[in-house]
Amino acid sequence: MSIRGIVQESDTKAGRAFDSVILVLIISSIITVTFETLPDLSPAAKRAFYIFETVTVVLFTIEYVLRIATAPKVRGYIFSFHGIIDLVAILPFYLSLGFDLRAARALRLFRIFRILKIARYNRAMSRFGKAISEAKEEVMIFFFATLILLYLSAVGIYYFEHEAQPKIFSSIIHSLWWVLVTLTTVGYGDVVPLTLGGKLFTFVILICGLGVVAIPAGIVASALSKVVKNEEREEG
Amino acid sequence: MSIRGIVQESDTKAGRAFDSVILVLIISSIITVTFETLPDLSPAAKRAFYIFETVTVVLFTIEYVLRIATAPKVRGYIFSFHGIIDLVAILPFYLSLGFDLRAARALRLFRIFRILKIARYNRAMSRFGKAISEAKEEVMIFFFATLILLYLSAVGIYYFEHEAQPKIFSSIIHSLWWVLVTLTTVGYGDVVPLTLGGKLFTFVILICGLGVVAIPAGIVASALSKVVKNEEREEG
Amino acid sequence: MSIRGIVQESDTKAGRAFDSVILVLIISSIITVTFETLPDLSPAAKRAFYIFETVTVVLFTIEYVLRIATAPKVRGYIFSFHGIIDLVAILPFYLSLGFDLRAARALRLFRIFRILKIARYNRAMSRFGKAISEAKEEVMIFFFATLILLYLSAVGIYYFEHEAQPKIFSSIIHSLWWVLVTLTTVGYGDVVPLTLGGKLFTFVILICGLGVVAIPAGIVASALSKVVKNEEREEG
Amino acid sequence: MSIRGIVQESDTKAGRAFDSVILVLIISSIITVTFETLPDLSPAAKRAFYIFETVTVVLFTIEYVLRIATAPKVRGYIFSFHGIIDLVAILPFYLSLGFDLRAARALRLFRIFRILKIARYNRAMSRFGKAISEAKEEVMIFFFATLILLYLSAVGIYYFEHEAQPKIFSSIIHSLWWVLVTLTTVGYGDVVPLTLGGKLFTFVILICGLGVVAIPAGIVASALSKVVKNEEREEG
Repeated sequence: MSIRGIVQESDTKAGRAFDSVILVLIISSIITVTFETLPDLSPAAKRAFYIFETVTVVLFTIEYVLRIATAPKVRGYIFSFHGIIDLVAILPFYLSLGFDLRAARALRLFRIFRILKIARYNRAMSRFGKAISEAKEEVMIFFFATLILLYLSAVGIYYFEHEAQPKIFSSIIHSLWWVLVTLTTVGYGDVVPLTLGGKLFTFVILICGLGVVAIPAGIVASALSKVVKNEEREEG
Repeated sequence: MSIRGIVQESDTKAGRAFDSVILVLIISSIITVTFETLPDLSPAAKRAFYIFETVTVVLFTIEYVLRIATAPKVRGYIFSFHGIIDLVAILPFYLSLGFDLRAARALRLFRIFRILKIARYNRAMSRFGKAISEAKEEVMIFFFATLILLYLSAVGIYYFEHEAQPKIFSSIIHSLWWVLVTLTTVGYGDVVPLTLGGKLFTFVILICGLGVVAIPAGIVASALSKVVKNEEREEG
Repeated sequence: MSIRGIVQESDTKAGRAFDSVILVLIISSIITVTFETLPDLSPAAKRAFYIFETVTVVLFTIEYVLRIATAPKVRGYIFSFHGIIDLVAILPFYLSLGFDLRAARALRLFRIFRILKIARYNRAMSRFGKAISEAKEEVMIFFFATLILLYLSAVGIYYFEHEAQPKIFSSIIHSLWWVLVTLTTVGYGDVVPLTLGGKLFTFVILICGLGVVAIPAGIVASALSKVVKNEEREEG
Repeated sequence: MSIRGIVQESDTKAGRAFDSVILVLIISSIITVTFETLPDLSPAAKRAFYIFETVTVVLFTIEYVLRIATAPKVRGYIFSFHGIIDLVAILPFYLSLGFDLRAARALRLFRIFRILKIARYNRAMSRFGKAISEAKEEVMIFFFATLILLYLSAVGIYYFEHEAQPKIFSSIIHSLWWVLVTLTTVGYGDVVPLTLGGKLFTFVILICGLGVVAIPAGIVASALSKVVKNEEREEG
């Protein structure tokens, strides 16, 4: 079995073993990155984390070089979604970048579908692609309507609450935070309208605005079920 | 190319350029209106904002006059959605109205679809129109049921919590605020039932009421997917 | 035109006028009941409210007697949904019951559909009836699953948080309040898990439980769109 | 009527009576387990609860033995969902386990469907099974995407808020709690971003992430309505 077969294929035994090793590495690397941020780590633990990190990056670099070497189209791999993620996952270590991009390794977890029955997951993924491209205009309109709704709500609440709570609703930009937290129904409670006008305004934008925020999910789900139906019609 | 062509058309090169200039003006005007409300602005910044505001309004006024002059039906334009928005966007400057309506310029952003592939977005927009007009009765019933549910819940929680928290649940009208925040699942936490009766009542209205609030979005999404299906059947 | 025609019919001019008068009475009566609860009312306002209340009840009583007198089946009316609501709306005044049921008048608002194009709304209402009766078993299972989920979550969080917050999670019954507020995503913030175990438990029940709470609305919306489709197939 | 008939059948009168008795026992047992946790119980109440608990477990044990004795396939019953629940419901009493599993009795409540019209509920249950198995890949992808989204959001908010609130966002693991509470829109308000960067980040993950969390429920509902349609097509 050639190296190309091991690295690129996932149907063969060796290919699967390679994918599994990489997956275990990814997961342990993510766990390391996560636990490194814990406060009050002992110096020994910090050192262990550093050594593991170095080993992981070296192995990921070897994998990256192998993938380039064995890729059918070198450029195609480097500029693909997975190719960029693979590079982003190791680059910060070499460049000692101020901003830490190692968390991007989590995106590499999508490789898990290579080990599972790929064909079927690829089909499910491509269904999503079709569903979203089919509902593209509707989703775009709602996305745009959501942004306009958020902005107009921020302006409205600013006029109602600015005088009563000048520190919290100090500008339209500050008011946007309240609008976001309210229309997504998160409702932390750190910013709350106090005036009667502000409360009535909240009433109106919640009753009218919840639909605007909730409908896109329904559109995508509908489009998806339509795609599945069309596929079945074509198949049989 | 006539002025009429530049202002009214959006398929020609000149028409697109005109629409793009207007769009850039709208967006910078919105940004100005937004940043003007920031506290602690320097006098220089305030003056710059004022000059930009004056220039914008003059340009918008010229655009408004051109649109009226070149409209196929003058009345049709003035009383259309876009015509009213265009007027509302400049009127406050001239009238020095106490209440600031310049934020309505955000609604002008819907013109963005003129620059994008219009035909397809118009189709998506008209689909929504059809979906809502088809589900009109169902949505009306739910809207009405929601209002009655909100009112009865406010009465209920008032009787349960008024004695325990006379300042917060001081009348049915004050209790409506709690009902709105709870049934939309925003839940700020500024008003919370404390009595056992009030909590049991919350349990009942949440279990029964969440559906009433959540179903309309599902209805519109369903109606929309039906409209799309019908269109495709007609097409072929 | 006979009194029977005026009271019972809603297609004739006199019938519609009668319905409109009753509707105005209901709405003003609801507004009165609502504003009566406002604190710091002047004695004059209280007296005006009392007089209006007396007049309203007398008129509602006359209407109730007329409805009984002209009903095709007296028993059928008295024990119907509207018949019971009509009685409940006036009874408290005469009995001077401690518990105030006047808010039940809000339910009389459902009569508003008599004035709107009744036939069409009746169709929309009967569609809901069909949709719910068709999805009855699925909704029942989810309702039941929701109750079991709420109970098991309350038991779980009680074991995790009881020791850390003995006053707030003082029993399974008290813990139910947290479960309700969390799984409906209201999240007031008055009760929050503090232990690591409690937070992990919250993670699991939220990821698994949100679907259980959100799916019934989707089922009803789906059933409704199916009912509409069937009706159209039958019609044409 | 044989004991086998009474225990295993639910169509006969005796079988239904047996099921009803067991159901009453389950419900009263759950109520006992629940009320036992109330603080400030009198010694008499505690004793009464203990006696009832002992009696219940003895009866449940007899039922368990009878079910094994009369099962068509002994192993099939012991390792079935209901068989394991039945054992878990009595085992802790005999083993005096530290961790209390009696709450698992709530799962026995699913037996309620045996007393109701079973055939129809079984059909509704099997519909759910089919719907979930049909939408398995889509749901898996969303479940996985949700986990990755939660992790990346936790990393992001950690970098934005760690310096401003070192005690609350003290590590990526601690930040996960905020992400969970925010993306499910629970929003307790115990952990809230304070920096501008953190708030902008919240804006982005809420606008993009709400769909990811909300879509699976729509997928299951869609799949369910498809299963129902297919069944009806097969029937007639």
